[in-house]
Amino acid sequence: MSSLPTYETLKLSQPKPHVTLVELNRSSKLNAMNKQLFDELKVCFEQLNTEKSCRAIVLTGSGKAFSTGIDVKYLSGVSVNELGEIDDVARKALHVRRMIQSTQASLRSVDKCEKPVIAAIHGHCIGAGVDLSACCDIRYSARDTTFSIKEVDIGLAADVGTLQILPKSITNHSIFRELVYTSRTFNSDEAQQIGLIGRIFDTREAVLEAAISLASVIARKSPVAVQGSKINLNYARDHTVDDNFLFASAWNSSMLMTEDIIKGVMASAVSKDKSNKDAISEIKFEDI
Amino acid sequence: MSSLPTYETLKLSQPKPHVTLVELNRSSKLNAMNKQLFDELKVCFEQLNTEKSCRAIVLTGSGKAFSTGIDVKYLSGVSVNELGEIDDVARKALHVRRMIQSTQASLRSVDKCEKPVIAAIHGHCIGAGVDLSACCDIRYSARDTTFSIKEVDIGLAADVGTLQILPKSITNHSIFRELVYTSRTFNSDEAQQIGLIGRIFDTREAVLEAAISLASVIARKSPVAVQGSKINLNYARDHTVDDNFLFASAWNSSMLMTEDIIKGVMASAVSKDKSNKDAISEIKFEDI
Amino acid sequence: MSSLPTYETLKLSQPKPHVTLVELNRSSKLNAMNKQLFDELKVCFEQLNTEKSCRAIVLTGSGKAFSTGIDVKYLSGVSVNELGEIDDVARKALHVRRMIQSTQASLRSVDKCEKPVIAAIHGHCIGAGVDLSACCDIRYSARDTTFSIKEVDIGLAADVGTLQILPKSITNHSIFRELVYTSRTFNSDEAQQIGLIGRIFDTREAVLEAAISLASVIARKSPVAVQGSKINLNYARDHTVDDNFLFASAWNSSMLMTEDIIKGVMASAVSKDKSNKDAISEIKFEDI
Amino acid sequence: MSSLPTYETLKLSQPKPHVTLVELNRSSKLNAMNKQLFDELKVCFEQLNTEKSCRAIVLTGSGKAFSTGIDVKYLSGVSVNELGEIDDVARKALHVRRMIQSTQASLRSVDKCEKPVIAAIHGHCIGAGVDLSACCDIRYSARDTTFSIKEVDIGLAADVGTLQILPKSITNHSIFRELVYTSRTFNSDEAQQIGLIGRIFDTREAVLEAAISLASVIARKSPVAVQGSKINLNYARDHTVDDNFLFASAWNSSMLMTEDIIKGVMASAVSKDKSNKDAISEIKFEDI
Amino acid sequence: MSSLPTYETLKLSQPKPHVTLVELNRSSKLNAMNKQLFDELKVCFEQLNTEKSCRAIVLTGSGKAFSTGIDVKYLSGVSVNELGEIDDVARKALHVRRMIQSTQASLRSVDKCEKPVIAAIHGHCIGAGVDLSACCDIRYSARDTTFSIKEVDIGLAADVGTLQILPKSITNHSIFRELVYTSRTFNSDEAQQIGLIGRIFDTREAVLEAAISLASVIARKSPVAVQGSKINLNYARDHTVDDNFLFASAWNSSMLMTEDIIKGVMASAVSKDKSNKDAISEIKFEDI
Amino acid sequence: MSSLPTYETLKLSQPKPHVTLVELNRSSKLNAMNKQLFDELKVCFEQLNTEKSCRAIVLTGSGKAFSTGIDVKYLSGVSVNELGEIDDVARKALHVRRMIQSTQASLRSVDKCEKPVIAAIHGHCIGAGVDLSACCDIRYSARDTTFSIKEVDIGLAADVGTLQILPKSITNHSIFRELVYTSRTFNSDEAQQIGLIGRIFDTREAVLEAAISLASVIARKSPVAVQGSKINLNYARDHTVDDNFLFASAWNSSMLMTEDIIKGVMASAVSKDKSNKDAISEIKFEDI
Repeated sequence: MSSLPTYETLKLSQPKPHVTLVELNRSSKLNAMNKQLFDELKVCFEQLNTEKSCRAIVLTGSGKAFSTGIDVKYLSGVSVNELGEIDDVARKALHVRRMIQSTQASLRSVDKCEKPVIAAIHGHCIGAGVDLSACCDIRYSARDTTFSIKEVDIGLAADVGTLQILPKSITNHSIFRELVYTSRTFNSDEAQQIGLIGRIFDTREAVLEAAISLASVIARKSPVAVQGSKINLNYARDHTVDDNFLFASAWNSSMLMTEDIIKGVMASAVSKDKSNKDAISEIKFEDI
Repeated sequence: MSSLPTYETLKLSQPKPHVTLVELNRSSKLNAMNKQLFDELKVCFEQLNTEKSCRAIVLTGSGKAFSTGIDVKYLSGVSVNELGEIDDVARKALHVRRMIQSTQASLRSVDKCEKPVIAAIHGHCIGAGVDLSACCDIRYSARDTTFSIKEVDIGLAADVGTLQILPKSITNHSIFRELVYTSRTFNSDEAQQIGLIGRIFDTREAVLEAAISLASVIARKSPVAVQGSKINLNYARDHTVDDNFLFASAWNSSMLMTEDIIKGVMASAVSKDKSNKDAISEIKFEDI
Repeated sequence: MSSLPTYETLKLSQPKPHVTLVELNRSSKLNAMNKQLFDELKVCFEQLNTEKSCRAIVLTGSGKAFSTGIDVKYLSGVSVNELGEIDDVARKALHVRRMIQSTQASLRSVDKCEKPVIAAIHGHCIGAGVDLSACCDIRYSARDTTFSIKEVDIGLAADVGTLQILPKSITNHSIFRELVYTSRTFNSDEAQQIGLIGRIFDTREAVLEAAISLASVIARKSPVAVQGSKINLNYARDHTVDDNFLFASAWNSSMLMTEDIIKGVMASAVSKDKSNKDAISEIKFEDI
Repeated sequence: MSSLPTYETLKLSQPKPHVTLVELNRSSKLNAMNKQLFDELKVCFEQLNTEKSCRAIVLTGSGKAFSTGIDVKYLSGVSVNELGEIDDVARKALHVRRMIQSTQASLRSVDKCEKPVIAAIHGHCIGAGVDLSACCDIRYSARDTTFSIKEVDIGLAADVGTLQILPKSITNHSIFRELVYTSRTFNSDEAQQIGLIGRIFDTREAVLEAAISLASVIARKSPVAVQGSKINLNYARDHTVDDNFLFASAWNSSMLMTEDIIKGVMASAVSKDKSNKDAISEIKFEDI
Repeated sequence: MSSLPTYETLKLSQPKPHVTLVELNRSSKLNAMNKQLFDELKVCFEQLNTEKSCRAIVLTGSGKAFSTGIDVKYLSGVSVNELGEIDDVARKALHVRRMIQSTQASLRSVDKCEKPVIAAIHGHCIGAGVDLSACCDIRYSARDTTFSIKEVDIGLAADVGTLQILPKSITNHSIFRELVYTSRTFNSDEAQQIGLIGRIFDTREAVLEAAISLASVIARKSPVAVQGSKINLNYARDHTVDDNFLFASAWNSSMLMTEDIIKGVMASAVSKDKSNKDAISEIKFEDI
Repeated sequence: MSSLPTYETLKLSQPKPHVTLVELNRSSKLNAMNKQLFDELKVCFEQLNTEKSCRAIVLTGSGKAFSTGIDVKYLSGVSVNELGEIDDVARKALHVRRMIQSTQASLRSVDKCEKPVIAAIHGHCIGAGVDLSACCDIRYSARDTTFSIKEVDIGLAADVGTLQILPKSITNHSIFRELVYTSRTFNSDEAQQIGLIGRIFDTREAVLEAAISLASVIARKSPVAVQGSKINLNYARDHTVDDNFLFASAWNSSMLMTEDIIKGVMASAVSKDKSNKDAISEIKFEDI
């Protein structure tokens, strides 16, 4: 990525080779999401998806929070300025639907990005912040993060990820539904207990460091193998076991012809025979 | 609910505004389920589904147990009286199928009820008792409850919920299959470990109090938001991520026009600005 | 099973009535899997599927490991000898696809076997070893087992179970994806935490003893009930709740006419009235 | 059916043994459908579903038309009386949804009835009349019937069958979509060309006679075979080929034990050997 | 559409109010599709999808053909210039996949556009031309059009619509598979016989006139009803009957509140009472 | 295929290069199907699936009929000899299920064979004969063939293809259900009208000649393209449009690298420029 694109609500950097760090950059609003952020997020992740030099992504919030969710001012503006001009209920509803679909497309771009995305969460992870984290592959959290599935408290059912993707990976549905129906806050421990969070770290710095470090490990692996794994995992989320096997056999029919396997097998043999664990991590793989 | 309907095998009360407590009322039989109970359960939950004043439901067992499952006398009666009169195996099988489908419809009425249902479990939760609890949104249990997926021990594969709904929310399938194949008893801790139970409380009273208290919190939230959340969560259980987003956009196209959002956003703003946490819980929402 | 069939890469025995112990038998290669093992595994489990006297199966590895995955020599041989002769990329890909599908069919035969299969895991469970364990109903592990989803390290996306079946039962997807994308080793505790392992035992001997003991308990239950449960559980993994209920009603329409229910209900009644817990385990059920 | 139940908007009779004729009975309104008709239709078909003596059903309209669709007075009444009292858009929408689901359940009861239903159509088949016919197994029509998928002309998308069931059996989707988007009328020939109609007859009397005659042929067949076929066909409409085979094997595992097969095979043998075609039609099968 | 956007490979005009005519504009190449055309097609249909004044679209080819399919020069260029630079087979395959997905997204934009699209076909409709027509709602053809599912003849399986969408609406699969496997040419009659074509007209002019006339009729209907119908029909193509009913009830819960129904019902009443057929076509509906 | 394998109930020959003719070879029984035929059919089509030199298959019946369905003697034998020894209804049902699944696997082997299969039908096509033809890609028939979906007449619901695969391709479901529920005979014209038959020929010889001729045309095409098309078409039968596009992009990511495309594109260019239609049919493609 010779020149990183610039956004107003996002800040991009490259803390390690092949690793892109994406920071939500509205810290004065605790990274509340407005239309610009939704738009830039989509452009950013679609661009990273085809950026050869990017192999793993860390998504975090600048300042004191991951994100406090949708910016209420944005919501109110839509309500007054856009819907106010439409009289017919059906036409209003169709307008609202377009708006929802546009927001869904924004957050889904994270889920659809074929490179692994690690969320580094701290401070507050509220409402659409949870939806956004649900679109990531892996979620790390600072110990003192405050979570809340806030939507019910502002009178709506979550529609950009929390009720759509999270149920596919949640561990204790009793507690999850309790959190959904009550909007009460919960901490990292409970988040981990229901399978929302993978690991907990003591500080914001530790979360970010661990996430970047993990991204760096992933970025040194064969991108053919890593991205193929994500594509197959996302596929498996929504298909039957039979379908998963069928898709995997079509997918790997060409992928098994990669040179990366030869490199991998050789390094693996070396590392096994000589207890030289570094052999694997020293292989260099070509970009895709 | 000006006048609560009366049933023989169920007891209804209203411990808090908008909260309905449904007690299985065959305590002398440890709430074993017979045809009358199956029939009344269906009528009851279909009625609660459209009862405006009911916004959250607690389901519990009177006396010493949640439920010990299907009443063996009922089973035997069917076998002798109804099947005994039919000679042809296929016709017997079609008769049995109708009976199973009727029992399934009874327990599914709890799952299909669009208001959240919290199971408060104590004493024994055996066989069809587990199936019934599987149809609830949230499961709380007393510490000394005895659980058993009893069906294999009486020679059959569970067909009214345990093998049909539970696999969608179970955490450790190794242990779950062990429990299914052996019918051994297990306690609340293990039930929580496999994701069957959300929370454990020390006594029967504590379970019930916590369940009613949770129901009361839910009942004070916007019913548009809560019931919309349940409808979307139940939908998500059986659909792909793409489908979930599509359905949510159709659903919320009208729901986002509710007045509840205005109330919710305003209260949320107040509670945030003034650290007045009560603002949210003081909103009054109209019935649906 | 009057005469147990013999295989070269598998060793079969009958440690308890109705229980078959299948040992991977390439201990000198740490049970790495080659073409012969894949072929014999399929024949073996298809045969056990219809073998009347077999009601529960324990799958384990002889020597120091469960399995270290695919035999790299076998992989290299395919690459050099079979693919080397084909010039056209598409024809190579079709050849590779047939090979993948054949390996998938081998491991799926364990998943499709209608008798419960318990994996007793120790030493190393690496790469295709994890895929194989994913095809079992229940997974027990020795405390010091080393696990690794090794595929990414040898340059490929897992295609014989790990990404196809495991996501249906995994608990913490954040950690699971971390393990997939990095190929790092993990121990039994972490394996249990993500829902891969049901129980942990201190030694290899203890694992095997517990697995055989569990198999023996299952083998004494009604095979109509146990196998019906597995068939319905595997069905439920890939279908909607509505479909599950529909299938269960078709399935049980005949199964509820079994004599086993009469035996089960009677024993159950005896054991309840007299606190004679043994009544149930003393029933003798006919083979299927 | 010793005593036929009586309805106000439906008229039931038994023109042949085991055949029930259901006539829409609002001829003064050209069988336009109001709430009472929707309610009675559901009760009627749920009752016929379990009525042993009924094995085939003919559905027709009394007077000059099959049906001209939903009664506009009913629609207007709902709009003014029920929705008029609700202020909030979301609550109105939830009320409308309940109303739609209730109407859907009414028409689906025809589709879900496990006995074959033959629609005998004449005069007008408009709007919800098409939806209703879509819920039948077989559609016969008089030559001069006027059809129209009327919904777009009254400002809505059809929601009780035409867009939900018909696409599963329509032949020429180009023409079908033209009919949907324009609401233009079409005749029996075009209806047959797009696969909506099976056969065309010259007069109303001929349609009805042919439908009753077909019903009578079906009613003399094994009800185990006929109803099993409908259940499997309806299942196949919504499932994969793999699922269809799996379901059929579960279904027939008990059904193949019926005595009807012995009767059928014997009669079939007789009719083949002696060219005695009547042997098959002379078998008497027991009720289910 | 005050000012129509301009494209190089497409020509847009507005032959009737609310009707957009899109002409493929590479007549010197018989409208063979190159990268620019794919790109512009996507932009064009995504733009029309949200263009308020557009309610129906006619898609046709300028000059002597609808389209002769993918431009072979474009294909060759990709092969030499883009793939030539990549050594690794897997990386080549991933590159090819991105290219296919981009082409799929282009043609799918026609299918996903929520306004009805009518293909007016003449001259040649070959290869990707058939795929493109498969993405339209309605297909009209000139009598002397030459069709060919050309892909097999150039060594590939069709991947942008013919094998993906057409099977959902094809009538005679025996003949369809014959056409796919042999690439032989067929005429309009055979195209109509397999359900590919809705209507046949004598000349190119007659096709276009009929298509524009049909589009004009559709454009005068309630856009709430028409677009709702298309959205529900596309949904029904891929979902079960149960799902279709569920989605329709969510969709219409708000759409039934439209003013268009009041207009439609009133006009319908007028047209019925007074035999004034024009009442319906004289209503003016608001844009969406 | 240097040496054709030999079967007792099947006769194989190679009437044209790369074309295999499979004749059902029980002409004295009008090709009624017994256990041996089911077993040999499966072996035969699994073998042809991997036989490099076979690229298209014609399936026909020797003597006076395609097939008159299941051999009643076989059915009776199973009933008396195998089921007679089992007392318990559930165990009988499980035995029956295994038998059904084995027969299903036999006929499915034709559907799963990745080479196109053309049925050449004459004389009688009855019961399981229809199921078998349903598993073929393309169906040609002699004008005087007698068809019957015979299952209902012998007391059962078809379970080996007619109700499982045919509904996916049938044109007029009204007539199809009529044929299913009544078992009445129908001729080639009606078979073509419902989409069962592709083409009709005057004599048995003409059918066979046309089928072989079509097979020969297909066999000269690129097998990469033809078999890829069949695999994608069979996939499309059971998946959504989105899934079809996704699978096609994975499939073609490697297949587009084939040399066959270069040959095809060049021949296509030659045949276009010089009106030399034979260029395409003169290409020689390598075996797969």
